[in-house]
Amino acid sequence: MSGLVMTLVTCSTSLHCGLEAHVRGPRQLRESEIIFQKQRKRTPGSQTATYQRKMNPKDDKRTDLCTSPVFVHNPHLDTLKDDVLYHFGLGTGTHDLPAMFGDVKFVCVGGSPWRMKSFIEYIAAELGMEDPKSEYPNICAGTDRYAMYKVGSVLSVSHGMGISSIAIMLHELIKLLHHAHCTDVTIIRIGTSGGIGLKPGTVVVTKQSMDATFLPKFEQVILGKTVVRNTDLDQSLAEELLQCSKELNQFETVIGNTMCTLDFYEGQARLDGAFCSYTEKDKQDYLTKASEAGVCNIEMESSVFAAMCKMSGLRAAVVCVTLLDRLKGDQLNESHEVLHSYQLRPQILVGYYIRKQLKAKAVCS
Amino acid sequence: MSGLVMTLVTCSTSLHCGLEAHVRGPRQLRESEIIFQKQRKRTPGSQTATYQRKMNPKDDKRTDLCTSPVFVHNPHLDTLKDDVLYHFGLGTGTHDLPAMFGDVKFVCVGGSPWRMKSFIEYIAAELGMEDPKSEYPNICAGTDRYAMYKVGSVLSVSHGMGISSIAIMLHELIKLLHHAHCTDVTIIRIGTSGGIGLKPGTVVVTKQSMDATFLPKFEQVILGKTVVRNTDLDQSLAEELLQCSKELNQFETVIGNTMCTLDFYEGQARLDGAFCSYTEKDKQDYLTKASEAGVCNIEMESSVFAAMCKMSGLRAAVVCVTLLDRLKGDQLNESHEVLHSYQLRPQILVGYYIRKQLKAKAVCS
Repeated sequence: MSGLVMTLVTCSTSLHCGLEAHVRGPRQLRESEIIFQKQRKRTPGSQTATYQRKMNPKDDKRTDLCTSPVFVHNPHLDTLKDDVLYHFGLGTGTHDLPAMFGDVKFVCVGGSPWRMKSFIEYIAAELGMEDPKSEYPNICAGTDRYAMYKVGSVLSVSHGMGISSIAIMLHELIKLLHHAHCTDVTIIRIGTSGGIGLKPGTVVVTKQSMDATFLPKFEQVILGKTVVRNTDLDQSLAEELLQCSKELNQFETVIGNTMCTLDFYEGQARLDGAFCSYTEKDKQDYLTKASEAGVCNIEMESSVFAAMCKMSGLRAAVVCVTLLDRLKGDQLNESHEVLHSYQLRPQILVGYYIRKQLKAKAVCS
Repeated sequence: MSGLVMTLVTCSTSLHCGLEAHVRGPRQLRESEIIFQKQRKRTPGSQTATYQRKMNPKDDKRTDLCTSPVFVHNPHLDTLKDDVLYHFGLGTGTHDLPAMFGDVKFVCVGGSPWRMKSFIEYIAAELGMEDPKSEYPNICAGTDRYAMYKVGSVLSVSHGMGISSIAIMLHELIKLLHHAHCTDVTIIRIGTSGGIGLKPGTVVVTKQSMDATFLPKFEQVILGKTVVRNTDLDQSLAEELLQCSKELNQFETVIGNTMCTLDFYEGQARLDGAFCSYTEKDKQDYLTKASEAGVCNIEMESSVFAAMCKMSGLRAAVVCVTLLDRLKGDQLNESHEVLHSYQLRPQILVGYYIRKQLKAKAVCS
């Protein structure tokens, strides 16, 4: 067991107590999710078995005695004969997931399938791993729900728009990484967003993801009851990305809070949706309050991304470029070329970070 | 004005009063949305102008004296020089929307871009309007967010997965139909779902869309405050679709309530997600309660679809096939061929309905 201890603390009141899953090992897992749920018994789950199975120092030479697996928290998975990752068109009964994905160390996710294909082409060039025929097959070609590409230890996956769409993808991605016995995985969402008081083109690395009332939480309804989850992201990873931006010196990058909304128009106080029942002043007042709460930008996926990555032990960051300053407008007025150049910035920053990490690892090994 | 009167009723308490938009005309609009919002003044909005502009009896011979436009409820739209429908890659400044879409009478929407292309091919054949070269260009080819196809008066649009993704599409679709001066539009969502206590392959036409606590409402956060919207769908349209299924006599169809969730795994009490903190019995108890509340199936878009269509005066239905009985399992065990045949059922039913409507219209004209 290598010192791995799992403690499940439960108490009895249905909406104000619950399950804390602490997994302690050579590296203390930084998660302490509190799920408000019904009382239940100690359920060891499948993470223990996985940890034992993958405690192989060859997997990561940088952290010989300290690898971190990808956790699922679901004892029922062990009872499945095959696990079908339906929205990926993959499964444990039909694909050799350890052979296909066991070496993954970096996962980049973004809304647009085109952008995630572009990212894998970019990272292949950055790492000197270009395919001479420029062929990067879509691993999820059997479905049109998501697109997935892989080069070396880097996986690139699209997630569509909104928390529901990214949550489906993350459930199946976390299971995929778990079934593939991956360890020490860093996951970064690269995307676009609306800025508040920032020059368009600024890149924001998220500190905390906030809801539309400026609280750092994600609410998930389970069995009809609301569960509150923590939306902190990995602060050391955010700082490393900020340092990379300084070294790159190509565009401005800041660390700040990101507001995650369920809706793009009314939910983000836009004046240009099909429905709008508030005034320009109402909008400005709301965005000003957001700014006062430390919100630098607004997008639609970071809260559930932060919550789920934290629960599964994935080191996670959100890196979004701002396409406009929402205090000055709602529609995009910049030229296609300028907007395209902005959209490249998160991938440039993350590409630089990955190359730097792999170089450091090569030196240590 | 043809008897058109618009009344905006407001009151002052921020969370317990609001705006009721009643539009009375030759045909009484069946919407009575209540938006909990701050007090605001009478704002006639742009729907009146549009109604006047498009009050043209030639537009719909079936209802010579009674056409119904597509409403936006946003006075700010009139102040925009151009309206960019960003996620469609279309706009009023770059495209002649009335010429492109002015004849649209039926809109079918569904999650998968492939399925919506398949639908337009199917409906073209049904209506005898096949392109000899089988070319059905994607009108939104400039973006990968949504796909859109058109044959005659039928528009087919993909919406991705989840309420956030479909809401962005619907905001821009409603504006598109409004800018194109469309009248008497029927919109139907065709999709897949998990059934409760129904034989897999049963088609469910939604009566009301319910949330995860079995209440017929959709909650939208606007300026940080929760607004509650009605999720009733058009009952006469549901009955017409049920009658069509009887005439087709190919598969079972029922009218029932549909639960709309934000999450596919924990949100639908599945046991096969990356995280699961409840037992098989907890799951069964929850789904049984849903069934007792009249829920026949579960999907992820119907609530915001019902709410937004109701607000914009679109006659709307949700037609989803059940791929499995959730009381008996969570993963899909049927063969690919069987699942594919199930997925065709909503399009067969809706295709029959559209053909029947167009035939009836041709007889009347």
